[in-house]
Amino acid sequence: MTTEKPDWIAMESRQSGLQVWLMGADDRVLQHRQSETSMSGDRFETRLRDLLSDVLPDSSVPIVVCGMRHPAVSPAADAYLSTPCAPPTIAQATPYQMRRFELSLLPGVKQAAPPDLMRGEEMQVAGLLTYDPNFDGILCLPGPQIKWVHISAGEIVSFRTFMTGELFDLLSRDTMLRSAVNAEGWDRAVFEQTLSETLVRPADLAAKIFSVYADSELNARSADVARGRLLAVLIGAELAAAKPYWLGQNVAIPADAPMSAAYATALEAQGVAVRHLNHVNLALSGLIAAYRGPSSSCP
Amino acid sequence: MTTEKPDWIAMESRQSGLQVWLMGADDRVLQHRQSETSMSGDRFETRLRDLLSDVLPDSSVPIVVCGMRHPAVSPAADAYLSTPCAPPTIAQATPYQMRRFELSLLPGVKQAAPPDLMRGEEMQVAGLLTYDPNFDGILCLPGPQIKWVHISAGEIVSFRTFMTGELFDLLSRDTMLRSAVNAEGWDRAVFEQTLSETLVRPADLAAKIFSVYADSELNARSADVARGRLLAVLIGAELAAAKPYWLGQNVAIPADAPMSAAYATALEAQGVAVRHLNHVNLALSGLIAAYRGPSSSCP
Repeated sequence: MTTEKPDWIAMESRQSGLQVWLMGADDRVLQHRQSETSMSGDRFETRLRDLLSDVLPDSSVPIVVCGMRHPAVSPAADAYLSTPCAPPTIAQATPYQMRRFELSLLPGVKQAAPPDLMRGEEMQVAGLLTYDPNFDGILCLPGPQIKWVHISAGEIVSFRTFMTGELFDLLSRDTMLRSAVNAEGWDRAVFEQTLSETLVRPADLAAKIFSVYADSELNARSADVARGRLLAVLIGAELAAAKPYWLGQNVAIPADAPMSAAYATALEAQGVAVRHLNHVNLALSGLIAAYRGPSSSCP
Repeated sequence: MTTEKPDWIAMESRQSGLQVWLMGADDRVLQHRQSETSMSGDRFETRLRDLLSDVLPDSSVPIVVCGMRHPAVSPAADAYLSTPCAPPTIAQATPYQMRRFELSLLPGVKQAAPPDLMRGEEMQVAGLLTYDPNFDGILCLPGPQIKWVHISAGEIVSFRTFMTGELFDLLSRDTMLRSAVNAEGWDRAVFEQTLSETLVRPADLAAKIFSVYADSELNARSADVARGRLLAVLIGAELAAAKPYWLGQNVAIPADAPMSAAYATALEAQGVAVRHLNHVNLALSGLIAAYRGPSSSCP
């Protein structure tokens, strides 16, 4: 199969690897590729060349990258815009010359107090703004590091990151809770009840986590129940702390994010009218907007 | 080297493996051995035989075991006393016949509400009571699963487990925080300041954890500082939730427990007069008391 030569390449660099879109001149996706190669891993250039060798006979194709970068690649000063700011565009990217490629590294966004940073999620903000340039409210981005982003007048006003997803993964994979929560699903009734209890008394998270285990051990709970409870304990503590980001707010959640169903359920149980963002890849839309500049995306 | 034949054997079964003490008739320790063999692992009996083959020519030597057990070994109903209760003694042990050995499995202690359990720590309570039969207060047991145990009139009245130690280990080993907190020590001044901030506003744990990372990344903090802050964020949230277990209480902490220095520092910063339990192995003292019965330990 011959791949049409791309006009440019959009790339999202995550902890878990690379998402790559080969783009036509009309910003159509010619092909989507992914790789477990991480930009902070060894032999990044070699692996990137392997991934793109068939479509990159020369290095004249622009490669626009958002997300994680190797600490050696660019100093922190280049790597972030400061809130409040609009999502970055190609004009703010830092060129990074490898032997065979030049990458355009889009900056992330940092916040001074409380100290916080995002690397890649700002393109999801840019993507949302291509669909709804006047969006005023909260974009909730579930994932290993969950972001609550306050967006107004086309800018990222403030944001807060919670490690809830990563804690859930670690606890359910690498601790004594593993067999207790070994299920795909989660009990929704238990989730909602535990969530409302946790919202009332959110502080004793590390004890509530152990209680999930003890309750399973002593009362032979099903894994669905224990998993629902563990999710609710973690998300409940997060919602209690993130209240300014959802109470009385207009909250949008990408439907395809991991754990987005749990977050939507939790917020709807608190009376929040969640806007589900379906059938869109916000990161890619954001990368297109960053490459073309906002005016060409929203004519 | 010939090992004197033990009169009996004391054994503590932990997640991380076995602690074994070969005991003389006068309850002197003839030898201490440890093994990474866990009771929930495969081939437990073979490994136990390897560990003890030189001293156990026959199976007539009593082996008294506290702590974790294989779920197949004893049903939950046999495995726990319910609070309030004195620490278990040999009279309450369940015999467990293997091909070559008979073990006497001491029960753990469970609590119905909030659901909680201990498996092994009850012997540390028994050990404390051999030194101070009238102890009235809190025994704080730092470790992967930290226990706060309220002891009065020779009984475990109530207790609460926090997974703080395990969360700290997971976060500093398996997440993006790893390089930020890669130090042996911890900055004490940062620890105390972050601790008091966290005690005032303990709820947003999963965000504070990410802030430790973001602050290190953005402000080039030393690993000692980041490690002190991560410890304080986790212990501060725990102290806020465990307040009934230390505010105005008489708190004892074994000096040899992992993280005991951080817990003692944190409690002393709140004005708690901590009693440091030095130079004693509480678990072994408790196992001796359990084997002999409390009256012979406290004549």
